[in-house]
Amino acid sequence: MIPDDSSINLAVTDWPYLDHDTPLTGVLCRDESASAARPGILLIHGGAGLDEHAREQARRYAAAGYVVLAGNMVGDGVAGDRDRVIGCLTTLRDNPALMVRRARAGLAALSRCPGTDGRAVAIGFCFGGMVALSLARAGEPIAGAVSIHGSLATSQRAQPGAVPAKVLACHGALDPHVPAGDVTAFAEEMSAAGADWQLILYGGAVHGFTHAHARPGAIPGVAYDPRADARSFTATSSFLAEIFA
Amino acid sequence: MIPDDSSINLAVTDWPYLDHDTPLTGVLCRDESASAARPGILLIHGGAGLDEHAREQARRYAAAGYVVLAGNMVGDGVAGDRDRVIGCLTTLRDNPALMVRRARAGLAALSRCPGTDGRAVAIGFCFGGMVALSLARAGEPIAGAVSIHGSLATSQRAQPGAVPAKVLACHGALDPHVPAGDVTAFAEEMSAAGADWQLILYGGAVHGFTHAHARPGAIPGVAYDPRADARSFTATSSFLAEIFA
Repeated sequence: MIPDDSSINLAVTDWPYLDHDTPLTGVLCRDESASAARPGILLIHGGAGLDEHAREQARRYAAAGYVVLAGNMVGDGVAGDRDRVIGCLTTLRDNPALMVRRARAGLAALSRCPGTDGRAVAIGFCFGGMVALSLARAGEPIAGAVSIHGSLATSQRAQPGAVPAKVLACHGALDPHVPAGDVTAFAEEMSAAGADWQLILYGGAVHGFTHAHARPGAIPGVAYDPRADARSFTATSSFLAEIFA
Repeated sequence: MIPDDSSINLAVTDWPYLDHDTPLTGVLCRDESASAARPGILLIHGGAGLDEHAREQARRYAAAGYVVLAGNMVGDGVAGDRDRVIGCLTTLRDNPALMVRRARAGLAALSRCPGTDGRAVAIGFCFGGMVALSLARAGEPIAGAVSIHGSLATSQRAQPGAVPAKVLACHGALDPHVPAGDVTAFAEEMSAAGADWQLILYGGAVHGFTHAHARPGAIPGVAYDPRADARSFTATSSFLAEIFA
């Protein structure tokens, strides 16, 4: 699952940026041996903040040929303090305008990364999936928004004709953290908005199915599912190939 | 969408077989220049019988490297007579055991086709999607079953632990011929059976989204959708690549 960094020349560096006066440090991953400018990915972490999972996913997509900025949705110095991370993410969740503003700061930072060609998508996991969808719902003119085992509910529904981003949601069919009603509501919301959207249900998968290092049983309803992990990466790769063709 | 036959050496021939005493003529498509044995696909037509759509899809998948038998679910001499085709398909739909038996005759015929390596999947469109799923539900030991804008309802639910085939359903989110309740019931059925299943919803797509030659408005609720067509082909290709890796 994790790319073999020896086969390409992946550079991984801290990438500081600001959301107004909030300092945020992301992680930039790109293949330094690539000469042509490439599309960028703002990769948005889950509920644990910018952790090893987000870094691994950033390397995975960078190895596939994209300039990837693993954004940081919480302020510097918060990472590692579980309570402060959760408090920060809860604040963002309850204030969609702030959440979108912070994600936009990540997109702006991505646009300044070396090697990008100006095109961008947002790909998020768990909490980050909600963030990616919130960008789409807010009408952000990105090429795509991908939610992988993300929250699908919202208090800020997409408006008809106002979702320029193509949308892909990869979802575990047995995810106990996302009620079936949220899936149905998401489909209806996207259809009513006239969005170009797709949703994939993975049978047998619960929440957090890409978390290869999840300790079984440590968090109720969260489990690694290698099949859903590989399939969602393949589906997202096909999605990116289509929109950046 | 339709492969350029000039780039490979696609052979297309009639392929007669029997379901008990019912003579059936399928269409075999394969790349004659390929030397190694390859997996086989039983491709199952929609409600119009083995028509040009089924032939085109057979060529499409054969061009992707598979030995494809476009099966025939109605008796010889029926094709072209709309009323007789519908009558025959209705008989099969109302008699799942007969439907499965007829599809198995197609699988047996596929196994005798030159160039196959013994592995097989069933891929069906509309009515044929229901047939492919009926094989999975009946416990047929095929590698995969794919339904593309197929009916998802059944009177013969899959039994727990008895679905060896991996299952993929590609579905138009606005398909008026498949109520949303059927989608939910299908997901619940496959989960309860412990199947390895996936379902993709394509926003904006209605029934028959692969029918490139569908006359707009000719059949209510049926329309070609080039995006969903291309995406379902990509998804099915990824599915085949995974199960035949």
